[in-house]
Formats: sequence, C-alpha cells, structure tokens
Amino acid sequence: MNEQPRQQSIEDGQEVIERVQEMIERKESTPLLDLLRPMHPADVADLMEHLDAEEADYLFSLLDHASASEVLAEMDEHIRERLVAEIGAEKLARIVDRMESDDAAEVVAKLSDELAERVLESIGEEDSEDVKELLGHEEDTAGRLMAMEIVSVHEDATVAQAIAAIRRAADQIGEFYNVYVVDSGGRLKGVLPLARLLRSPSDRRVADVMERDVVRVPEGMDQEDVAHVVQKYDLVSVPVVDEMDRLVGRITIDDIVDVVVEEASEDIRRMAGTGDEAIREDSAFRVAGVRLPWILISLIGGVLSGSVIGAFRGTLSSFLPLAIFIPIITAMGGNIGIQSASLTVRGLAMGEIGAYEIWKRLFRELRVGIVMGLVCGGSVGLIALFWESNAALGIVVGVAMASAITVAATMGTFVPVAFKKLGIDPAIATGPFVTMSNDVIGLIIYFGIATAMRDWLVKL
Amino acid sequence: MNEQPRQQSIEDGQEVIERVQEMIERKESTPLLDLLRPMHPADVADLMEHLDAEEADYLFSLLDHASASEVLAEMDEHIRERLVAEIGAEKLARIVDRMESDDAAEVVAKLSDELAERVLESIGEEDSEDVKELLGHEEDTAGRLMAMEIVSVHEDATVAQAIAAIRRAADQIGEFYNVYVVDSGGRLKGVLPLARLLRSPSDRRVADVMERDVVRVPEGMDQEDVAHVVQKYDLVSVPVVDEMDRLVGRITIDDIVDVVVEEASEDIRRMAGTGDEAIREDSAFRVAGVRLPWILISLIGGVLSGSVIGAFRGTLSSFLPLAIFIPIITAMGGNIGIQSASLTVRGLAMGEIGAYEIWKRLFRELRVGIVMGLVCGGSVGLIALFWESNAALGIVVGVAMASAITVAATMGTFVPVAFKKLGIDPAIATGPFVTMSNDVIGLIIYFGIATAMRDWLVKL
Repeated sequence: MNEQPRQQSIEDGQEVIERVQEMIERKESTPLLDLLRPMHPADVADLMEHLDAEEADYLFSLLDHASASEVLAEMDEHIRERLVAEIGAEKLARIVDRMESDDAAEVVAKLSDELAERVLESIGEEDSEDVKELLGHEEDTAGRLMAMEIVSVHEDATVAQAIAAIRRAADQIGEFYNVYVVDSGGRLKGVLPLARLLRSPSDRRVADVMERDVVRVPEGMDQEDVAHVVQKYDLVSVPVVDEMDRLVGRITIDDIVDVVVEEASEDIRRMAGTGDEAIREDSAFRVAGVRLPWILISLIGGVLSGSVIGAFRGTLSSFLPLAIFIPIITAMGGNIGIQSASLTVRGLAMGEIGAYEIWKRLFRELRVGIVMGLVCGGSVGLIALFWESNAALGIVVGVAMASAITVAATMGTFVPVAFKKLGIDPAIATGPFVTMSNDVIGLIIYFGIATAMRDWLVKL
Repeated sequence: MNEQPRQQSIEDGQEVIERVQEMIERKESTPLLDLLRPMHPADVADLMEHLDAEEADYLFSLLDHASASEVLAEMDEHIRERLVAEIGAEKLARIVDRMESDDAAEVVAKLSDELAERVLESIGEEDSEDVKELLGHEEDTAGRLMAMEIVSVHEDATVAQAIAAIRRAADQIGEFYNVYVVDSGGRLKGVLPLARLLRSPSDRRVADVMERDVVRVPEGMDQEDVAHVVQKYDLVSVPVVDEMDRLVGRITIDDIVDVVVEEASEDIRRMAGTGDEAIREDSAFRVAGVRLPWILISLIGGVLSGSVIGAFRGTLSSFLPLAIFIPIITAMGGNIGIQSASLTVRGLAMGEIGAYEIWKRLFRELRVGIVMGLVCGGSVGLIALFWESNAALGIVVGVAMASAITVAATMGTFVPVAFKKLGIDPAIATGPFVTMSNDVIGLIIYFGIATAMRDWLVKL
C-alpha cells in the first residue's frame, strides 16, 4: 500500500467519509476495520474529526489498543478530550501505556484529577513516573513538551557499545535520529547522529567521534523560544537539560512545527480579537461569547469617538459637510494603525526586532507615517476641495488626515512594543485597541482643526 | 565549547556585535576569526545581519570557503543577495560547490543570468546538473525545495550493503535519517529509518525490513501542501517522486518549518495589507510604496462611505445627533468583519475548512452575527436612548447596529471563501476589502432606517 497523501482530493475524502458512515450505521465492523487497517493513524484521526460524536465513538471502540493509542496521539484536542472522558479508566490506561511519554502526558494533563490518578496507577511504574515528571513542568515549557525516551551512552563507551544500546532501546522508542553522549554525572557532552555512528569504526570511543557542539535548551525555556532555537539552527531534535546541564529529554521537530503553527494562529486570532484558543464550537452563543469581549472594547472606543463628535457638535452643525469625512478619517487611521501594528507584532514574534532595533523601527514608522500622511492627506484634501468646492474644507481635511495618519503609524508601532515591555502579548494590542485609539485621536485632530478654522470654513 | 543558544540575552548579543565592530574597524583579522570559529554558522549569519554592509563584507571575506558556504546557507535572503553579487564568480563558485544542492539552487536562482552561468560552469559537473534540474522546477514546488542528495539502495540489497552505501555516501551528504529503497526502475518502494537499519540482521534483504508505507509527495506539489503533509504525518523528511513514482529527492523538515513560518507571516501581512513580502527596507519611501496601494483601497472605501453620508445629508441635517453614532457603526462592523474573515482565512489556510464545511460555517457565522448583533445593537441602542433621551434614536441606532453586525459577520466569512473560489488569496480579502464593504453597508443600513423613521426621530 502506498500512502499517497490525500490532501488534494476533498471529493475522495468525502466519499470515504460517507462509506464509513454507512458501515457504522450498519455496524459492519469487519469491513470497516479492513478499510481502516492500511490507513495512516493521522488519516484515521482526520476521518474521525468528520464524523459525529456517536459515529466516532463507535469507530474508536473497534480499534485495538495499539492503533487507538496511535490515532489518539494524532487527534485534535477537542475530540480527544471528549473520547478519553468516555472510554473508561481501564481501557484508557492500556492505550496511554502504549504512548510515548510526551503524548501520554498531553492526554493525562486534560483528564479530571480522579481519572488521571486511576490511569497513572494502572500503567507501568516507569511510564507513570515519566508522565508525572513531565506534568511537573509548567505548561508551554521545554520540560513539558519533551519526550523522555532518549538513547544515551557514556562518553567512554565504544561505537559498538552504542550500537548495542540502540538495538536494546529500539523496541521502546519509536523513531530517533541521534544518540546522546553523557558523562558519569549524566551531563550532556555530545551527540552522535546515527549516520555518523554508522560510519565510525566500532572500536572507537564515542567521545572521539561525537559532535561536541550540541545546541541544547533548558527545561524551563518557553516553547516559543525553543521553536526559535530549532528554526535558527535547523535542528531535527533538540536535547533538553536541567540546570546542572544533565540530559533530561529531547524535543523532536514535529512537535515544534505544531508550536510554530499554533503561535502564528494565536497571533492572528489575537490581532483579530477572536480569543486565545481556536474556535471549534458549533454553538453560536459560545462563539459569540468568546468574541464579544473584544467587540465590547471597540464599543467603548465607538462611544468615545461619538463623544468627540458630540463635543464638537457646534462646529458640525455650523458646517455639516464635515460629517462626510468622518468615515474616511477613521478608516484610514485604523488601517494604517493595523498595518504598523501587525508588522511590529510579527517582527517581535519572529525575534526580528531586538531591544536595539526598537527605536530605529519607531523612527522609521514615523517617517513612513509622514510620507503616507502627505500622500493620503493630499489626495483626500483634493477630493474634499472638489466635492464641496470649498478650499478651506480641503485644507482642514487634508491637514487632519496627514496628522492622523502620522499618529496612527507611530501608535501602531509604539503600542505593541509598550505592551511587550509590560509583559502583555503585543498581538492583543493590534486589533481593537489600536483601531480604537486611532479613531479617537483622528477625530480630535479633525474636529480640532475644523473648529480652529470654523470661521473660514463657513465663510467660503 | 557548548553552544548554548543566545536567544535570551539580547545584551550579550549586543556586546558581541560591538566587539566585532571594533575588531573590524581595526582590521584585527586573527582575533576576529578566533572569536568566530567556535560559533555556529547560524550565529555568524545572525551577527552579520546586525553589521552594516561594509563591515559584513569585510567579515565575510575573512571566512574560508567551507565556513562561507555554511554561513551563506543560513543567511537572510536580502543580505545574501547583496553579498553574492559582490564576491566575484570564482570565489562564489567555490563556495556554492560546497553547498547541498537545495541551498546551492537557492543562491544561484537569485544571480544574474550571466553570473549564474559562470558559477555553474565552475562547479563540479554533477553538482551543476543537480542545480540546473532543481531550477527547472517551478518556484514554491516540492521539486524546487528538495535536495537531491539522497541515499538509496536497491530492494534486493542486504542490510550490510545498505550500511556500506551509507558509509560511502556519508562524506557527500551532511545529515540524513533515512535510506530509501527503490526497485530497478528507480521507483520508491520503501524506507529504512537508520535506527531500524541498525537493529536489523546484516544478511536480511532490505525489502524484508523496510517500512512499505511511505508518505511521498509529487515534485509538482505546492510547498504549502507539502507543509500540510509533513505536519499531518509528523515527518522529519519526505521523499519527492516524479510522475512515474521514481525517487528524485527529499525535503527535510527544517525547510518545511521555514515554509510554515513564511506562509503564516504572509497571511498576516496580507490580512493587514502590508504586501506579500516581508518589509526589511529602511527607506520610508519604499515602505510607504508597498503599503500605500492597500491604503488607497480604504481611501476609496472612505469616499464611498462619505458619499453615503452625503446622500443622506437631508436626514442628517434634520437630526444632527445621528452623526455621533457614525464611528460606532463603522468600528463595530469593521471589527466583527475582521474577526469573521480572519477565522475563515486561517481555517482555509490550515485546511480546516473543506468544501463540505463551507455552508455549515457560513450558517454558523450568520447565527453568531445575529447573537452579537442583538447584544451590541441592544447596548448601543440603550446608550443612544439615554445619551440623547430619545427613544426613536435608541431604536434606530440599535436596529441599524444589529443588522450591520449580522451582515458584517456574514460578509467576513463569505468574501474570503468567494476569493478562494476565484483563485485569489483569501488573506487579501480580509483587511481593507472587508472593512470597506462593511463601512458602506453599515452606513446605508443606518441612514436608511433613520430616513424611514425621520419624522418620528425629529418629533420626539
């Protein structure tokens, strides 16, 4: 069986889903298992995500413990949580027992305390210790993300002994690409990629053939920083060490890819103000519940903007065409602010903007704001001039727009940086907050200038 | 030397940069090389990105060809392009000669035709063929991204012969984790992870110990789809095959991580309307040039919104407090539209929304829009009621807000999906386009309702 990825043919996938649903309805367990057997666990997990809860439960109940554990490891969190809550402590323990420590810890972390305890009691003692140790680390750190299944040899071992250690370990550890070399204290001294091990004479000491320059991460490091390290050094896996530089685990890059994708999505969600977590709910009320807090921030912003207009009611009533340009002032300020903010947030997230570059960046945005302000202010001013045949209106609108845009670009850069300094995720700043401030500031500038030039506006 | 990642101490990094700059100024080449020698090529590349052009050129000129090729492979594109244009064809050829085919192709792709030809003439014939073949593939496809350095053995070979092949290949190929198994026609039949190879008896046929289910990608597959495959199946490297299923190369996951990061950043940039490419310019004019087209779209939107207000001037002049709620209507519609659009864009990008789910999604957003519309419309209506002590204004504003929000949520979901169907990147739809439509539609609804209820508004 070739497992050609099925990505590209949604129609095929849809057909398989319908066949599976039919088999489930008729309880045809044998042909169903025949259909599932050649499939990759990731494909089975994918399939289950397209079934309804009852169908998925039935399909999952048919799988043997080994397949169930592979499928569970690949599954989306929200379905996995529901499944594991339903299958009973005993069966769950047998499934978790077959997982690697990092996957097992991920599953156990989401269980109720009581169920977690029962599962941990029922699995092998060593596995249980591993999971407990992993769960002792804070969420989103290297220590929590790592797997504890590692192959390590003493620096005085020979290449032949290292190969023997791999043969012994191979049954328990799925895939691995490196043998780590440690001293008598367990401290990480080097790494032996398997390809290098294979071409080393079997009587050499591993210390003589290993790579000594090993990039490592401390167990307390935030997973986002781990991702930066792995990306920067193009690593396939990275060893994790404790504060004494003792080897405690390893993180493989497939988990890092998940982190990178998750962080990028989180940034996008925060920028758009749709909450920290991916929304997979189907209930309109719950989705609205996650999104409303952000919208209420912009409601407050709207009320503030309205107050500005209310405060300048006199100016507006003496020259009504001013109202026409309210949406242009707010829309342009808002969009420029979002541009600057998203560039800054992304730069901060990717580690492109260090402490060193912040002032340079702010100064650049100020200059960019002035350039864009002059272009847009000029255009809008001309539009206002011809639209209402009023030179004063053209000047008021143009100057206000140019100033508002300059401020928006600067604010859009400054706010995320300030949030970062205050320990708040800068992505949160980007959406509603920047838009709101720019609306208010833009309107104050606009009506302030209009009021100062009121006599001239009305006279012409 | 332990290469502890330096991520966390920007201050340390700053100190190193200053020391290096000093050494460069005094032309102290020997101590400078001593400082660089223990550094990871990625760190040297990083350091060079913080130097000015002249400093970086000097530092790069000190490196031997092997180091230069490693550093060049890790370097940011915009600095690399400048460097390679300056170092001369002969030296460049020697550096490129030492690179893996995928890195070499990346460098050569950016050279002028003439320089590229001279470099390709000067490097080994086999390498030159490889690079030419890679460059024959379209940009952003698996065939362009892959490296051609692979270790493959015939299915009839023994484990001992496979190990011998690895020993022979190891000098030319940096890191690899899998041996691919092919038939006499070169077609991919299986894969042997090195760990599995190590624990197999040396007289067994590789065909008997290999894994037969190999996820592979066709050479024409878009790199974004390759990234989805690698993520889904948790792969460390993926073999690339031609239309006859013949093995032609492999893609390692570190290149995929770059693709994933790049795609996420591209989505964010397009959503914010800051252009397709990362902005690394320092010239305010050029940055403004990239961003202005997007801003001019929202300028057009602003003019349209202004026209709506202009068209309803009669209504506005007969009841001026209507102006106060203009920014609330536009801000709320805009933010809700961006929420819906970014959820949809991200869902499409991550492959979470198939053809099957689109209608379900649209229907969900409609319901979410109604819930949020009722909550926000109710709140804003009450604010309007008490602010101006006018029940009619409360009702006009509340009803308009509720309708505008419902439309905004639906539009925010519909537009990216429609763009995708039309073959336009949905991320482009998200920023200016959705905001602009929602402003215009929201204002038409608002002033439409206000005009219909004008008599009642003025009377109360």
